[in-house]
Amino acid sequence: MTVMPGATLARLREAKPLVHQITNYVVMNETANATLALGALPVMAHAREEVEDMVALAGALVINIGTLSPHWVEAMVAAGRAANERGIPVVVDPVGAGATRYRTETAKRLLDDIGVTVLRGNAGEIATLVGVEAEVRGVESMAVAGDPAELAREAGRTLGLVASVTGPVDHVSNGGEVLTVANGHELLATVSGTGCMSSAITGCFLAAKPGEPLEAAAEALAAFGVAGEDAAAEARGPGTFHASLYDALYNLRPSTLDARARVA
Amino acid sequence: MTVMPGATLARLREAKPLVHQITNYVVMNETANATLALGALPVMAHAREEVEDMVALAGALVINIGTLSPHWVEAMVAAGRAANERGIPVVVDPVGAGATRYRTETAKRLLDDIGVTVLRGNAGEIATLVGVEAEVRGVESMAVAGDPAELAREAGRTLGLVASVTGPVDHVSNGGEVLTVANGHELLATVSGTGCMSSAITGCFLAAKPGEPLEAAAEALAAFGVAGEDAAAEARGPGTFHASLYDALYNLRPSTLDARARVA
Amino acid sequence: MTVMPGATLARLREAKPLVHQITNYVVMNETANATLALGALPVMAHAREEVEDMVALAGALVINIGTLSPHWVEAMVAAGRAANERGIPVVVDPVGAGATRYRTETAKRLLDDIGVTVLRGNAGEIATLVGVEAEVRGVESMAVAGDPAELAREAGRTLGLVASVTGPVDHVSNGGEVLTVANGHELLATVSGTGCMSSAITGCFLAAKPGEPLEAAAEALAAFGVAGEDAAAEARGPGTFHASLYDALYNLRPSTLDARARVA
Repeated sequence: MTVMPGATLARLREAKPLVHQITNYVVMNETANATLALGALPVMAHAREEVEDMVALAGALVINIGTLSPHWVEAMVAAGRAANERGIPVVVDPVGAGATRYRTETAKRLLDDIGVTVLRGNAGEIATLVGVEAEVRGVESMAVAGDPAELAREAGRTLGLVASVTGPVDHVSNGGEVLTVANGHELLATVSGTGCMSSAITGCFLAAKPGEPLEAAAEALAAFGVAGEDAAAEARGPGTFHASLYDALYNLRPSTLDARARVA
Repeated sequence: MTVMPGATLARLREAKPLVHQITNYVVMNETANATLALGALPVMAHAREEVEDMVALAGALVINIGTLSPHWVEAMVAAGRAANERGIPVVVDPVGAGATRYRTETAKRLLDDIGVTVLRGNAGEIATLVGVEAEVRGVESMAVAGDPAELAREAGRTLGLVASVTGPVDHVSNGGEVLTVANGHELLATVSGTGCMSSAITGCFLAAKPGEPLEAAAEALAAFGVAGEDAAAEARGPGTFHASLYDALYNLRPSTLDARARVA
Repeated sequence: MTVMPGATLARLREAKPLVHQITNYVVMNETANATLALGALPVMAHAREEVEDMVALAGALVINIGTLSPHWVEAMVAAGRAANERGIPVVVDPVGAGATRYRTETAKRLLDDIGVTVLRGNAGEIATLVGVEAEVRGVESMAVAGDPAELAREAGRTLGLVASVTGPVDHVSNGGEVLTVANGHELLATVSGTGCMSSAITGCFLAAKPGEPLEAAAEALAAFGVAGEDAAAEARGPGTFHASLYDALYNLRPSTLDARARVA
């Protein structure tokens, strides 16, 4: 295990990977700006007519079902399969799985039809997808029984991927090892789309650290969490925090990240 | 009549109602963040496949036609009817009614097909829907003849709902009583989507004060207006005002709201 | 040639033209807010059912293919033709032309089917549309051979429009004259959608200076660039820069713009 977030961040800024995102209407600008502030290149493209061409240019694909509808789901599957054929890592963010049948079924379909590298969600969403009882209200995880580290391990094992379960403390697992990330700030929960941003940043780190999705996913959460801590120091509330979050991602130095990442 | 915005705000933060929003592409992030900053939980879902399931979880439904298209209108109607069946309050924001025939007809269809609790719009939009001559340019109300208090009363009476007519001073009426809200700041007009935010916040207050839509709608405008006043004190222009607006919603205390609400 | 950006800006604020934008999901809020902060009125409407009615109210139409799909392309063509019939200027922003076949073909179709007043893009996008070799990765121009001033002239000449090629220095040409705009700041490249904002602002200036698209397009870039310079002075990174950019557009005085515009 080699968790070296600073080195990955430095490599990401050098390579500037294109991160293709098929995401929801609410956060498109936010995940694009988080990607750009970190140092990668975002591109949003959802038309069935072009997703395969676009993903072929990308270092990672991020699929997020936050405001899904049938045409978009078809494009997600097509893009995911094209990514699989080319060995491009795929992040799935199952926003609101457990809240409605349509979201749960779509998330399951994506997991069935695509080889997913990292599944990034909150405890309620991930629990829903491994068949554990969970309460999901809208897109918020309300109550999940049990230990989140075990949930991540169970999801990683049964789904055959890296599960990245975020919350006050994050747990990332490939079904065997579990990495715990203890960075972040409570103001992150006051801004819409910060979970989606963490998925986008996971895509950036996967592109910069190919073949090591467990470590890359944990490093991404550490980087986003440290940026959240820095942003909170400048903030008077959610609005100024939100603006400062992009500043913090942009100004995050690899050495600072290594010094402050709390990954265990 | 019991206008007690502070008590409603405190209850809202305690209950954290889910507010289901089917709104326009321009402001989705903004209304989600305003909802979250205030203390409720936003969820955006527009697919015909899930709107009925989603609204069943919600304390209020907010429908906004700012960037409408046929599939979305079908989902709005389906969600509205499902809300009606369950007694969940419905806010309609008829963005741009009067500017194009499609918007006017869609707004009228929503009023026909759904039991609407609160209709929140500018004077031009509301006038259009009660058959009063108005000039609507794009989504801006340019010129409406007559007294806005009377317009609110007329809309409330003829449409059988609470009409919430916003402008420099806001007027809210159930067709009988008219409440006047004199909070706010001119910088609100320099940021896109602040009208839409006021509709989202109206949904939050309806969820927290069931059965009293007249008072809840006025309280919502007072809360948003006071937040606007606070944000203006921090701002150097529309961009910093916009960021500070979320800070102000988040930091708004019930006692401050009661002290400064100008509802008569 | 009469480049007088301050006078155009003053006229724009006096007339408050409606600028109809059919643009991408990522930047809708941002281009609306830039338009509003500058002093014009934005309206977003993309439904085939209403675009012709909406554009008839507008002083300019801005078409942006950043997140295109078939229904939207049909509406873009319909709106563009309606604008042509009424003599309303049309800006096209061919976001990502060259990255996928679908984007390239759609951009070419728009140029074929609509009379375009100004084509605003980066060097890679514009080069693609005039048949010059270019590398476009996602929506970023990576490498284009040759002189950007000549590219602008070539695009203006062969496409029969005003080409506005933005980059560290911008070049605007009608195929004969080339205007060079040397305003701006590198932080503009760290925020998603600033290119799209420059297209929206180009629409605003076209509406305020009818019949002089070469000068209006250059003035728009100067105004946006000076605002970028002002915003950078307030910024600690991309997030605070982004917020300050709207402040700067709002606070930009015609006399300041005239004094600092670097158009040659």
